[in-house]
Amino acid sequence: MRGQAALAVSLGDPAGVGPELIAAAWARRIDQALPPFAVIGGAKLLQAAAASRGIDLPVARIASMDEAAQVFAQALPVLDSADLPYRPGMPDRAGAELALQSLGHAARLAVSGAAAALVTGPIAKARLAEVGFAHPGQTEFVAEACGVHPGDAVMMLAGPHLRTVPITVHIPLAEVASRLTAAMIERKGRITAMALIRDFGIATPRLAVAALNPHAGEEGRMGDEEARLIQPAIDRLQAEGVAITGPHPADGLFAPRQREHLDVALCMYHDQALIPLKALDFDAGVNITLGLPIVRTSPDHGTAFAIAGRNLADPGAMIAAIRMAGECAARRLGQ
Amino acid sequence: MRGQAALAVSLGDPAGVGPELIAAAWARRIDQALPPFAVIGGAKLLQAAAASRGIDLPVARIASMDEAAQVFAQALPVLDSADLPYRPGMPDRAGAELALQSLGHAARLAVSGAAAALVTGPIAKARLAEVGFAHPGQTEFVAEACGVHPGDAVMMLAGPHLRTVPITVHIPLAEVASRLTAAMIERKGRITAMALIRDFGIATPRLAVAALNPHAGEEGRMGDEEARLIQPAIDRLQAEGVAITGPHPADGLFAPRQREHLDVALCMYHDQALIPLKALDFDAGVNITLGLPIVRTSPDHGTAFAIAGRNLADPGAMIAAIRMAGECAARRLGQ
Repeated sequence: MRGQAALAVSLGDPAGVGPELIAAAWARRIDQALPPFAVIGGAKLLQAAAASRGIDLPVARIASMDEAAQVFAQALPVLDSADLPYRPGMPDRAGAELALQSLGHAARLAVSGAAAALVTGPIAKARLAEVGFAHPGQTEFVAEACGVHPGDAVMMLAGPHLRTVPITVHIPLAEVASRLTAAMIERKGRITAMALIRDFGIATPRLAVAALNPHAGEEGRMGDEEARLIQPAIDRLQAEGVAITGPHPADGLFAPRQREHLDVALCMYHDQALIPLKALDFDAGVNITLGLPIVRTSPDHGTAFAIAGRNLADPGAMIAAIRMAGECAARRLGQ
Repeated sequence: MRGQAALAVSLGDPAGVGPELIAAAWARRIDQALPPFAVIGGAKLLQAAAASRGIDLPVARIASMDEAAQVFAQALPVLDSADLPYRPGMPDRAGAELALQSLGHAARLAVSGAAAALVTGPIAKARLAEVGFAHPGQTEFVAEACGVHPGDAVMMLAGPHLRTVPITVHIPLAEVASRLTAAMIERKGRITAMALIRDFGIATPRLAVAALNPHAGEEGRMGDEEARLIQPAIDRLQAEGVAITGPHPADGLFAPRQREHLDVALCMYHDQALIPLKALDFDAGVNITLGLPIVRTSPDHGTAFAIAGRNLADPGAMIAAIRMAGECAARRLGQ
């Protein structure tokens, strides 16, 4: 029986912090006990990005993912010859095209099983849109590559202190209340519970649902979505045996003693999920997509063009994303 | 020139954690360097609440606030003979009436100048409403007692890691976008800046304004309130010389490195302000009302009926509220 395949890591926007953080993660592969991974494209670019952090990066060009694990200890494996000069902080069309090629190729490797999982470097959506990327984000792109409806690809943010799932994501705050449905909460809650069992090895995951309104609506005095949408979804999931509670007033849900009692918080909108995660776990936050046939993670930060190439970006989230992808993939294999 | 007057502390709901935390704060007056304070009402109740925490509480009944400072080292000064048996966790009508009497009396003492500041114990709004309390909360009650329009009484949450101001407060999330106005942001921003100078001794306070929409709306793709409401308010305050920036994506604003660059975050709605505060500073969060002729603080937690009388509640926020009230009052006197 062969060992676990290597992970496929996409470059992200080459002008952002992605390449330097991938190089920094490889440099710390031993003390961080990282699983083997290969980067898709950008061999020279990665070396230049590494040099900007004072890292002398050996690169091993590989022809197939099978070769990655065996060279990983000595060099960063790079598959795919696409490359560009390193121009940190200066995003352009060619960089967006390289980012998109790297993402597409990495996703195909994960879907085919050649890679154990997919880790995506940070992209700039507006830049990718200019070269024909029509998805709201990488999550939806990856869902489509897997043949999964984007609504069933659930974004979870995970850090050392907290895991959160935003039920609605990239929509204006004014539309959150009208677009939230009980079916959406129920469906994403179910996918989340299953993923925590399968990918995180939590036998009975405890889900806590945040309320939408201040003080959970104070019995309807400040909004009725708790009774009308959230409670019915909780009731249905409880009836299925899911250990789910709520709706809890959102402001107290992330306090230290409350966090002890939950494995994941289901949040009603983007910032409700992202504010506590970034306040507590900014440098180690991982964005993981649940509900897919593949494991996909990403560091929970952007391209940070303003600090790219200046040895300022913290590799903690990239390291955590690589480690989590390896752990989840291993659990799926029963390893 | 006489020294600073004592603070007036209202009991809060006598069945909640207020009385025991006031007693616990007094017991730690020396190691916490607390300013002298007197409680309004509840002498026997305070002794019973103290006993539930193993504190043998000496009480000094005083006839006027002038006596408080001189007895404070030896006993907890209590003004006003109103009292009740201690029944933790069992709120009732008589308790609500006592809470309201204590609040009203304490507020009058602060408004008259007999007390240096007002610290309010936690109440249960629904209970107080049953005995005729018609205000949304204590903040609005205190504003009225001061003759200030409730819209000009600004709630700030302050902890060791963060200060936040919610611009809209106790309204359904669905109404936030439609009720937010540039004038409201501008007015509360100005009051906040002035209070940080006067009450907190920050010569040039740095205000950071959170966006309403995810990713600050991504240039209008996810909402236009940033451009339509928030930016104009920021522009006007900058023109007045206020050191104010934004709108910033709210999720990153409370991350450790971003927090270093702000003295207060202006938030667009209740949970945007309260989630990061409670995640980071749950046991030391203070609710302070800015824009009043008096200094008023409160611990940023509720009555916690479920744990009252069980020696479980943490006195950190009550201690912080008393200390902050004393410090702000001293700054107003130029001490």
